[in-house]
Amino acid sequence: MLINVAETVVADALRGMAAAHPELTVDVENRVVVRRDAPVAGKVALVSGGGSGHEPLHGGFVGPGMLSAACPGEVFTSPVPDQMVRAAAAVDSGAGVLFVVKNYTGDVLNFDMAAELAEDEGIQVAKVLIDDDVAVTDSLYTAGRRGTGATLFVEKIAGAAAEEGQPLERVAALASRINENSRSFGVALSACTTPAKGSPTFDLPAGELELGIGIHGEPGRERRAMMTSGEIAEAAVDAILADFQPRNPVLLLVNGMGATPLLELYGFHGEVQRVLAARGVAVARVLVGNYVTSLDMAGASVTLCQVDEEVLRLWDAPVRTPGLRWGM
Amino acid sequence: MLINVAETVVADALRGMAAAHPELTVDVENRVVVRRDAPVAGKVALVSGGGSGHEPLHGGFVGPGMLSAACPGEVFTSPVPDQMVRAAAAVDSGAGVLFVVKNYTGDVLNFDMAAELAEDEGIQVAKVLIDDDVAVTDSLYTAGRRGTGATLFVEKIAGAAAEEGQPLERVAALASRINENSRSFGVALSACTTPAKGSPTFDLPAGELELGIGIHGEPGRERRAMMTSGEIAEAAVDAILADFQPRNPVLLLVNGMGATPLLELYGFHGEVQRVLAARGVAVARVLVGNYVTSLDMAGASVTLCQVDEEVLRLWDAPVRTPGLRWGM
Repeated sequence: MLINVAETVVADALRGMAAAHPELTVDVENRVVVRRDAPVAGKVALVSGGGSGHEPLHGGFVGPGMLSAACPGEVFTSPVPDQMVRAAAAVDSGAGVLFVVKNYTGDVLNFDMAAELAEDEGIQVAKVLIDDDVAVTDSLYTAGRRGTGATLFVEKIAGAAAEEGQPLERVAALASRINENSRSFGVALSACTTPAKGSPTFDLPAGELELGIGIHGEPGRERRAMMTSGEIAEAAVDAILADFQPRNPVLLLVNGMGATPLLELYGFHGEVQRVLAARGVAVARVLVGNYVTSLDMAGASVTLCQVDEEVLRLWDAPVRTPGLRWGM
Repeated sequence: MLINVAETVVADALRGMAAAHPELTVDVENRVVVRRDAPVAGKVALVSGGGSGHEPLHGGFVGPGMLSAACPGEVFTSPVPDQMVRAAAAVDSGAGVLFVVKNYTGDVLNFDMAAELAEDEGIQVAKVLIDDDVAVTDSLYTAGRRGTGATLFVEKIAGAAAEEGQPLERVAALASRINENSRSFGVALSACTTPAKGSPTFDLPAGELELGIGIHGEPGRERRAMMTSGEIAEAAVDAILADFQPRNPVLLLVNGMGATPLLELYGFHGEVQRVLAARGVAVARVLVGNYVTSLDMAGASVTLCQVDEEVLRLWDAPVRTPGLRWGM
């Protein structure tokens, strides 16, 4: 691993992020990443966070048109309420704060506690819980479905709504609707290596893959002998469509878990498009890349989000973050 | 690997790229990626290419403000002259074409042949050779120094000059100057896996690293026991500064080789900044991410490019490509 020691990995990364992105305010000691112009008068603020190791999520999605602040925890470990309250206080303009919370037990508990503490300080807080992963209910890290790729859609689309001045209630309702209209399914072709452990987090022999993996490498639905890119695309799309049949066109995220080369990811995207076309699902917009990762895990996930014209307009709205940028 | 079969990896990727980027024209059969609005009247065109496996380089750098077209070869294998001539013909507006060639023997020979063929067809061609890697001269893949991270700087900065209507002679001279003012040094923490081989291309035991690696995993200067991120930053920066002492501020690219998590790469960037500050090198702009990769290799490279105000202005100019985008 390209690190100094495991204990300083997150602090080291934040220092490096601060030096790379002068448009962000990075509080290395307290572990809060804030867009520099926050609080923005009259604007609802979006705050997210979670364990580190999924970069660019969430710190890389802080900026105009997306998150107001992010709280990185230790690797694969929830941030603490103090970080979230500090972030909320730094970005609240009086218009309130939306917490975007992936459904992992630690994150949920800590954001709940932070919401109470922030409200005690007079900050109006709403929450949205992201639980788009159709692979398993109840896993190593959470009760219910896990939150994964839909987080990007929620942060982008609700972020655009907040940027144009929509009130907290509407931004929160929109965020919930985006989550409800999103589904994900992922596969792992290798385990990932956490700095603390220094070796793969689980044993996945070469020539096998894990269908329905979580973003921490937690077990999925099934271990199988290696499949082709086309077969994996079919398995992922069909698992999603078995749970949710989009009536409208979709946003499509084909997301790399970290170590899968872009060359392979584009090829996989082509297969996903082929399967979607065969199943009659129209694709309105596409994003292919490493956005919600799991350190150096090889593999990919597919996320669909059913959209209408209003949501598509918000998706297309300008965004300027380290990880996602267009229109400015 | 997330592939169908090794034989179709590049074609599969191009199909997936076409579906993801309607702003590009992707000729899957002939393996040419072209910006959709080419040829642009009166504009010098930039064409690059090389072996696949280094994505987003080069296809991901096609678009306004950067490349006019790219020719992907097989994995780690030069494209053929026919692709390059076809690309040149597709993008030439009559103002001429600049070939951006990384210094690898196959690429150099094929681009030379393509330049002759294109000139026979009445296309004015200039060439710039990229050879920024200070690690070794004469290696497995080339005579002289290898071309690596500086390619991104040349394609962005010369691309901006072409976009604003500078003539071929000036764009070519600028491209040469950017290359002359750039130096790179890379390290590998793991080998990469080519689709054709299906296993790591060389044997690098856990707990060791290779200093001065090439982007194909070709051997570097030295194999060492694992070093800290800070020690690697010192080795990389000092190798560069031993060869070239910038008098002006620099552009800094901290580039991931593919499988190194962004979390680690940001931490490494912080260490590179620390070393540069200690050596008195001022940093004008920074780019941290996976831009010139080597499939799933773990590791990173550092590239410095000495700039003046004019070059900085061209660096900051708008660009809109799948891999690099700002200002539009």
